[in-house]
Amino acid sequence: MSGAAPQDAVRRRHLSVLLRHVHVHGPTSRAELTALTGLNRSTIGALTAELTAAALVRETPQDSATRSGAGRPSLVVAPRGEQHFVLAFDIGVDYLFAARVGLGGKVLDRRDLYRPRGEYPLSDVLVHVRRFAAEILGTAPAQATCVGVGIAVPALVRHADGLARAAPNLVWSDAPLGDGIAAAVAELGGTAPVHVRNDADLGALAEHLRGAGVGSDYVVYVTGEVGVGAGVIIGGRPLTGFGGYSGEVGHTVVNPTGRLCVCGLRGCWETEVGEKAILDAAGRQGARTTVAEIVAAARAGDQRSATAIRHIGGWLAIGVGNLVSIFNPEVMIFGGLFREVFPLVRDQVVATLQTTGLQPPREDVRFVLPGLGADSTLLGAAEVAFGPLLADPLGWDSM
Amino acid sequence: MSGAAPQDAVRRRHLSVLLRHVHVHGPTSRAELTALTGLNRSTIGALTAELTAAALVRETPQDSATRSGAGRPSLVVAPRGEQHFVLAFDIGVDYLFAARVGLGGKVLDRRDLYRPRGEYPLSDVLVHVRRFAAEILGTAPAQATCVGVGIAVPALVRHADGLARAAPNLVWSDAPLGDGIAAAVAELGGTAPVHVRNDADLGALAEHLRGAGVGSDYVVYVTGEVGVGAGVIIGGRPLTGFGGYSGEVGHTVVNPTGRLCVCGLRGCWETEVGEKAILDAAGRQGARTTVAEIVAAARAGDQRSATAIRHIGGWLAIGVGNLVSIFNPEVMIFGGLFREVFPLVRDQVVATLQTTGLQPPREDVRFVLPGLGADSTLLGAAEVAFGPLLADPLGWDSM
Repeated sequence: MSGAAPQDAVRRRHLSVLLRHVHVHGPTSRAELTALTGLNRSTIGALTAELTAAALVRETPQDSATRSGAGRPSLVVAPRGEQHFVLAFDIGVDYLFAARVGLGGKVLDRRDLYRPRGEYPLSDVLVHVRRFAAEILGTAPAQATCVGVGIAVPALVRHADGLARAAPNLVWSDAPLGDGIAAAVAELGGTAPVHVRNDADLGALAEHLRGAGVGSDYVVYVTGEVGVGAGVIIGGRPLTGFGGYSGEVGHTVVNPTGRLCVCGLRGCWETEVGEKAILDAAGRQGARTTVAEIVAAARAGDQRSATAIRHIGGWLAIGVGNLVSIFNPEVMIFGGLFREVFPLVRDQVVATLQTTGLQPPREDVRFVLPGLGADSTLLGAAEVAFGPLLADPLGWDSM
Repeated sequence: MSGAAPQDAVRRRHLSVLLRHVHVHGPTSRAELTALTGLNRSTIGALTAELTAAALVRETPQDSATRSGAGRPSLVVAPRGEQHFVLAFDIGVDYLFAARVGLGGKVLDRRDLYRPRGEYPLSDVLVHVRRFAAEILGTAPAQATCVGVGIAVPALVRHADGLARAAPNLVWSDAPLGDGIAAAVAELGGTAPVHVRNDADLGALAEHLRGAGVGSDYVVYVTGEVGVGAGVIIGGRPLTGFGGYSGEVGHTVVNPTGRLCVCGLRGCWETEVGEKAILDAAGRQGARTTVAEIVAAARAGDQRSATAIRHIGGWLAIGVGNLVSIFNPEVMIFGGLFREVFPLVRDQVVATLQTTGLQPPREDVRFVLPGLGADSTLLGAAEVAFGPLLADPLGWDSM
């Protein structure tokens, strides 16, 4: 209820709603936009004209094959992904993914780097990011605009400046990731704002917008590699916490007599269902084995691997049950290494939840795999980078 | 962005904002309301005139001693609690509290009933509620309006009709509490809508509005009697979950080799920090002892009681740490029996959190006791009953 220029504020909100709609849902006819927003046709026309003039959307006549009814065809409004894009990076313990993602969410160019597991010094990350950024920017059309840079990292991140406060599995503590990437972007002549966020939070965001969480406002996205974390959508909004550090479900204690965790606690969920726990259970710790290999062996009938996966399934059921009791989600998505593991233990987890615990929080939950495969996190990084543009399509770069 | 009567919608929202403000914050001058809302003076005057005509507020000249500056004194807008009230009930395992609460949040009349611990059949609850409702309505001014009935219960509640899906410690399952209370109210000639909610959720709501959570948008209210639960405020809004069943932190497993819980799980947090666990730890299970007596004995130097409380403190630290890792709250409030226990174990809990777990979610959290004492839940029940009136001050009863 600010007193300043209310009409302008309303217009900007309408522009934001329209651009966000075509960004998430793709090409949409003016008639559909009219029905969706309750605005009249001339207002929609004026708004889309503004977005067209800013090269954010393109309007084309509706394909006569797909339109219904007689009368003049409605124009179709589509995002101009080749004109406005973001750089997105997904930093993992043993990989770095980079992409140019256009308005509308399409990956237009990408680079993947795999590296040995273990410490990934910030200086190395910055060298890799800079190289990929240069390559990807080099392939972008000359007149296109980079509107933001989004970075996913398995860390607790201070949103304001992208300081990675704690990333135990990268062996980082108070690492100035945001500042480092902003400097790398500036060296390349860029001025786009840099947004660093926790990887699980971004995975949840992307799955909610474009993946297995579409249509639900209560989504828990659990992901694991070396570490385990969750991103949560509540009432259609991301759970953040006071400092932005919520969702650290990997560091909730489920087994107080269990193993010591990197965080100093004993028996964190991460120590029971993370990668190390799976390798341990299969007796492969130290060997050059991956979780995928253990899962494949279990599927092929190897008893030791099957027993190991069942053991992990028991602990997965406990942690999943805890999250269901706390959040009462409609959809629970299993990302990261759980994409491999969960299909083998689904029946076990479901059976545990059906027979134990208070039932009302459990009765409507669906367990699914990510709709975006291994790219949930990368695409979430793109979404956060599009945030300011989508919030204020004509004023975002004058802030 | 509905197309229907936008001006009327704006006016109704403004009326809602004003009435909610004076309901929560008490008498407020028109000048302050102008500054708070950004609306101009004549608009504020027109809106408060409408609220005055509906007997929702009273406008009186500002006390000359408290006003500042020269010029004409600004009128002060105050809620008319004696004209519009709710009935609020807090149903516990061994008590029933009932109150008439006026607009503005003041308790105008109340009745407390204590009963032996154990099963509390719905039929008994309804008899007690009906008697208290009759007594309390009998003392209300003849021209006053009951705008709603709010009920807190230690249960998982279906919000739409107040069905108590699961209340293990009352020994209820799918108990039609909402319908029963609506029938009791109707017998008394009332037509006010009935709102039934989980007790911990209501405690969190009241503490956020009027208690120890004022000024923070990230609040976890943990409460225990026989059972243990939490209400959570995230970004200023109550956490609900898909079916309204979130916050069941008492039924998260923290000790898989521990005791069997009423819910069928083993080692729920409730089995480690609930009333029974405290009595067990002190060796008083079955004796006629209360947690308050054990706490008093521990304070007086009784070693066995002190050891028991320290044991509970260890489990409290584990569960509190888990909640902090998940929600990253700014304020954590200890209600119910934790009002007695927490002061004795505060140092123990704080020390555990300072030395274990990822630190960023933990660094800003404050641990406090309820600002509303034992009445958080009862006052939360009143708030939910005021909800429709506050959302639409002039149209709430025509819905």
